[in-house]
Amino acid sequence: MGHTFPGTTVPFGAVQLSPETDTISYEANGKYNPEVYKYCAGYKYEDKTIVGFSHTHLSGTGHSDLGDFLIMPTQGKLQLSPGIAADTKSGYRSAFSHATETSEAGYYKVTLDDDNIIAEMTTTTRVGMHQYTFLKADETHIILDLMAGIYNYNEKNVWTYVRVVNDTLITGYRQTNGWARTRTVYFAMAFSKPFISYGQKNYDAPKAYKGFWRKFDQAENFPEIAGKKIRMHFDFKTTAGEKIKIKFALSSVSQSIALENMRTEIRDWDFERVKNEAQKLWNTELNKIQIEASEDTKVNFYTSMYHAFINPTVYTDVNGQYKGLDQDVHMATGFTNYSTFSLWDTYRALHPLFNIIQPSRNNDMIKSMMAHYDQSALHLLPVWSHYANDNWCMSGYHSVSVITDAISKDVYTSDANEALNACIATATHRTYEGIGEYMDSGFIPAEKSNISVSNTLEYAYDDWCIAQLAKKLKRQDVYENFMKRSGNWKNNFNTATGFMQQKMADGTFKNNFDALSTNGQGFIEGNSWNYTFFVPHDPAALVEKMGGKTIFAARLDSLFTMHLPDSFFAETEDITREGIIGGYVHGNEPAHHVAYLYNYTNQPWKTQYTVRKIMSMQYKPTPDGLGGNDDCGQMSAWYIFSSLGFYPVAPGSNEYAIGSPMVNKAVLNLENGKTFTIDVIDQSDKNVYVQKVLLNDKPLPTLFINYTDIMAGGTLTFYMGAKPKK
Amino acid sequence: MGHTFPGTTVPFGAVQLSPETDTISYEANGKYNPEVYKYCAGYKYEDKTIVGFSHTHLSGTGHSDLGDFLIMPTQGKLQLSPGIAADTKSGYRSAFSHATETSEAGYYKVTLDDDNIIAEMTTTTRVGMHQYTFLKADETHIILDLMAGIYNYNEKNVWTYVRVVNDTLITGYRQTNGWARTRTVYFAMAFSKPFISYGQKNYDAPKAYKGFWRKFDQAENFPEIAGKKIRMHFDFKTTAGEKIKIKFALSSVSQSIALENMRTEIRDWDFERVKNEAQKLWNTELNKIQIEASEDTKVNFYTSMYHAFINPTVYTDVNGQYKGLDQDVHMATGFTNYSTFSLWDTYRALHPLFNIIQPSRNNDMIKSMMAHYDQSALHLLPVWSHYANDNWCMSGYHSVSVITDAISKDVYTSDANEALNACIATATHRTYEGIGEYMDSGFIPAEKSNISVSNTLEYAYDDWCIAQLAKKLKRQDVYENFMKRSGNWKNNFNTATGFMQQKMADGTFKNNFDALSTNGQGFIEGNSWNYTFFVPHDPAALVEKMGGKTIFAARLDSLFTMHLPDSFFAETEDITREGIIGGYVHGNEPAHHVAYLYNYTNQPWKTQYTVRKIMSMQYKPTPDGLGGNDDCGQMSAWYIFSSLGFYPVAPGSNEYAIGSPMVNKAVLNLENGKTFTIDVIDQSDKNVYVQKVLLNDKPLPTLFINYTDIMAGGTLTFYMGAKPKK
Repeated sequence: MGHTFPGTTVPFGAVQLSPETDTISYEANGKYNPEVYKYCAGYKYEDKTIVGFSHTHLSGTGHSDLGDFLIMPTQGKLQLSPGIAADTKSGYRSAFSHATETSEAGYYKVTLDDDNIIAEMTTTTRVGMHQYTFLKADETHIILDLMAGIYNYNEKNVWTYVRVVNDTLITGYRQTNGWARTRTVYFAMAFSKPFISYGQKNYDAPKAYKGFWRKFDQAENFPEIAGKKIRMHFDFKTTAGEKIKIKFALSSVSQSIALENMRTEIRDWDFERVKNEAQKLWNTELNKIQIEASEDTKVNFYTSMYHAFINPTVYTDVNGQYKGLDQDVHMATGFTNYSTFSLWDTYRALHPLFNIIQPSRNNDMIKSMMAHYDQSALHLLPVWSHYANDNWCMSGYHSVSVITDAISKDVYTSDANEALNACIATATHRTYEGIGEYMDSGFIPAEKSNISVSNTLEYAYDDWCIAQLAKKLKRQDVYENFMKRSGNWKNNFNTATGFMQQKMADGTFKNNFDALSTNGQGFIEGNSWNYTFFVPHDPAALVEKMGGKTIFAARLDSLFTMHLPDSFFAETEDITREGIIGGYVHGNEPAHHVAYLYNYTNQPWKTQYTVRKIMSMQYKPTPDGLGGNDDCGQMSAWYIFSSLGFYPVAPGSNEYAIGSPMVNKAVLNLENGKTFTIDVIDQSDKNVYVQKVLLNDKPLPTLFINYTDIMAGGTLTFYMGAKPKK
Repeated sequence: MGHTFPGTTVPFGAVQLSPETDTISYEANGKYNPEVYKYCAGYKYEDKTIVGFSHTHLSGTGHSDLGDFLIMPTQGKLQLSPGIAADTKSGYRSAFSHATETSEAGYYKVTLDDDNIIAEMTTTTRVGMHQYTFLKADETHIILDLMAGIYNYNEKNVWTYVRVVNDTLITGYRQTNGWARTRTVYFAMAFSKPFISYGQKNYDAPKAYKGFWRKFDQAENFPEIAGKKIRMHFDFKTTAGEKIKIKFALSSVSQSIALENMRTEIRDWDFERVKNEAQKLWNTELNKIQIEASEDTKVNFYTSMYHAFINPTVYTDVNGQYKGLDQDVHMATGFTNYSTFSLWDTYRALHPLFNIIQPSRNNDMIKSMMAHYDQSALHLLPVWSHYANDNWCMSGYHSVSVITDAISKDVYTSDANEALNACIATATHRTYEGIGEYMDSGFIPAEKSNISVSNTLEYAYDDWCIAQLAKKLKRQDVYENFMKRSGNWKNNFNTATGFMQQKMADGTFKNNFDALSTNGQGFIEGNSWNYTFFVPHDPAALVEKMGGKTIFAARLDSLFTMHLPDSFFAETEDITREGIIGGYVHGNEPAHHVAYLYNYTNQPWKTQYTVRKIMSMQYKPTPDGLGGNDDCGQMSAWYIFSSLGFYPVAPGSNEYAIGSPMVNKAVLNLENGKTFTIDVIDQSDKNVYVQKVLLNDKPLPTLFINYTDIMAGGTLTFYMGAKPKK
């Protein structure tokens, strides 16, 4: 349930070309079909068949979308429907087995058993390249299914347009109404060999006006195709062992720019060269942190690095254009525009990680968020920026955390005051998710919102970020206002119970409080047990509220050791039993910082013990290795930080809390030319306890290091042991 | 049933802003609803209510589309549905009466009786301007109905997107699947006064994904709106007598360019100035021919001039961009791109008329047709070019006639050989409407097409045009090939009956021939009686085939005097009893040249008699003045030519056949600075017979004049009398 995909992409690539093992739909009546959740990335490891290979995928999400332009090669009798998994002969899908599957960074290969076709694929940033080897001579078909899609449903396809330009080139677009409400993807598709015929079927031909195109047989060899539900086929005659290659380029702007993307990024038909270049790009990125560790840890670490560098995705064409949130075409001048910002997840560790090892990209990502803000008729920074749309998924306004973290670290090169103004505008948008009530009362009445508590907690943290940014920019009034707001978490803290709880408009706590329940208690993807620890910007105050360090540490102990009732799993979205340690839910994000909170008590060794436990239990070098959705790299970024031995408890501050590294050694190759080395002495599975930490050979005075310590280059030396250093 | 609209446009304007008196739909099951035909232009004179004012209309078509962005002002209780005509209180529609209606070139005014609102409107090329005067103080609403449309049906609306930029500016687009299969119109809408609130209703809210936008109340004051079926309202408080003005700009490219169109064409809120400028534009165009005539003839003549100068419509934005047939954005460099080419109609007289009084525009229109060809994946010149689509309406490939006519008259300034190549490619596209069979056999077997005869006849004429063009360009082989093809009409002529008839693949004529029937006889919008005369490029050969001039003239006499059975009217599309003289159908085009064919016999005075009869019977200065659809100006162009006393029987030749003028005098102000004057001596209702014609004081040797005679300037003098000059 990591919801990652096994196919191929380059780092932050606009194209993610990957197999779909099924195309489960929403129910036609719009009712949620639980099966659809399992196919967020299009691929389920247990499945025995492949439907085809599509060009866009989200990595690790819990809702989903995309799956554009499904391609499938077949031989023999033409079948335009995918058929059913139980009988692959019923359609164009094929059986496959993992034995023939190769999944490398930048390369994917599998044998399609039905017709014994070897499918290989690689990508550039904006172009997918397919290579199909047909082992037997036969009538060969390449299916282009323009109806297929991930999280599909009856009405998701809004429109499709296709132009067969000549016998090797096709262009067109597909428009969908999915998680991205209004999304159009343009494409250009080239074959290495001319097809001898082609055709299409429109599964939703219009009832009126149908006569006007009667002059043509549109089913066969008709080059101007449009409709809501279209599947196409291109027909070849192939000899045994013959290869057909396809280049498939995407654009958010136009067909002609999709073609320009193709012609710029892949000029010839040299599949091996394109693959080698894709893998070189990955090696460059993955080498930004070089580690020495056990084989399993290496696999986990670089898998995490790989997953951390998939999203956000490049969302500009080679000429710098892209379709903006206002559905108009824009030019990204002086930066690469990005989409796919799952900010509720990624503000926690992914963007903080980027500030260390991808600062240039993170700078462009913030410029992308500011462009989104400029284009927003609502005048809001992105919540979940998704291909010229905001899908508004999850809560908070965590853009402000990402912006503050980058500006506080001098990563952002545009106007910081404009960014602060965007943060303020967003945080004072009264009609957004209870902000008005929050501003008036310091909390959101339970009557007003069913996620009133997590909203208040998240807003309070975000407000602290805005205050830090204001402080840096010497905007004292803003600083004071938002520092005041940042204390609002206290309004939902019930001293009587020691938990965060829903408050009614009259100021009383709501009845029927259940600290374990994730349902109807005012939280999103979490319960009070997890969310109560969500004061990342002021753990000291929370410790005090809870009754001091000892009680606080005991509460943490309870969290990590309690036994959850079955009802918890029945009602809680987006997690699995494997994603849980005691009552701590690692599979969802709200408690990602919690293991590090022992650092704010007198028992920091419990952070060390716990983070090692989480790393071991929640990250495995196996197909079911993740304890929850990777969430666009957040789960992976947590692992990368933690395996290096530190973690950003409160992005926006310059501080990282020390944990317990998994690596033996790590070298961070920084963009500024410096290197920061982590040396771990006496590392072992048992030696999880930090005995001593030296920064550039001097003992660390606290269990925290700073951003400037890292970026200055140098060495952090951990001395490990089997017993807690109390 | 002229299907013209009473609203406002500038000459060839991209915006045609006009009232809809009803919004009749196709049946939801796609079944044709005969009522929809009556509303091709959105307005039926007999109706008592106005639904609103929309920004695009076709003038005189028999199928239809458009009606984009319906606006309606109301007061009092908000009603978002149009309601029914029988009870205007049931919705936003209003009663009106013709007594309050003013319809001028460039200006329309009416009182909306329900709330006593005076509606006025005018236009520039790309912007409509509304001015609503609210006589009573009240809560005021401006409805923007994005579901409404002409020839609408359940599934025509594909997508709508709206952005409320601020309290006076809205932008967005509407995408439809209608007669134009894939059409998107972008808009920018500005109010002269800020609205105090606004809202929308989505009548087709998606069933899935609906939760993701739950954070907002999208019904009220929510500025990012999208969906398939949306109606919006903007709310104001107005004092008695207050005016609210609206500027509404269109673009085929983007919202931002729609806004640029608005800001370029109307900078302020001066309604009177915009109206005066629109009317000045019309005066300039209408003065290209200045006539002296009876009041009724003047009304008919300038009404015809007005209708002739509505289509084709400008289809470039102020920056020269437009969306092409390939659904990609193009720049029209060095010309204005046009859309709305109803070529089966307009090749006959409208484009020939343009070669005389609008040669610059006609040059650009041919450049537009060539751009369409360049963008066509089918490599076909336009049949019915319609907003980035070809709707393929009617038969033939009459682009070649328009191109040949312009090139033969040296009107076209781009590469003539490229144009000829496009004509050849189109005429040899074997899969288009029986062209393959036509090329192989010289006719189209009845088994292959239900309009095999009219196709063969029209192809033969078009082929003659291509031959003439080839001759001019010294392409001898092309000339010979297409001259041979131009004789193919003979293959459908049955010497035994003297009629054009369907031929079977085996070369025999089909059984059950009925010369009167328009159904199942191989013709489109006509019967054999009318179509048998369709050899415009070689009347002499047809005369001979029919048995010589006397028999031929007697056949024409029969056509114009016969009595049609009731069954004819029951089965024949697109005509009325008023559109018929004998068996001659003026309301449809195929016989438009037939009255002039007496000139090819020894009885030319019958042409004179007949054309005067047609002008009198088929064109009246009344709301029901036209005997059939105006067909994008073709009916009007016929009138203009005929009233001046000559007509282009075979566009592509330089010859015009002399008829009988209706005017007393006409001065054609030519673009080359010269004037061509028509003087009619002894003109009267009775003096319909031409006694003598002088060209520059010299007697005309034949009853034909040439293009060069006209363009050289000079005077054509008719001497009229009450008796035929035999």
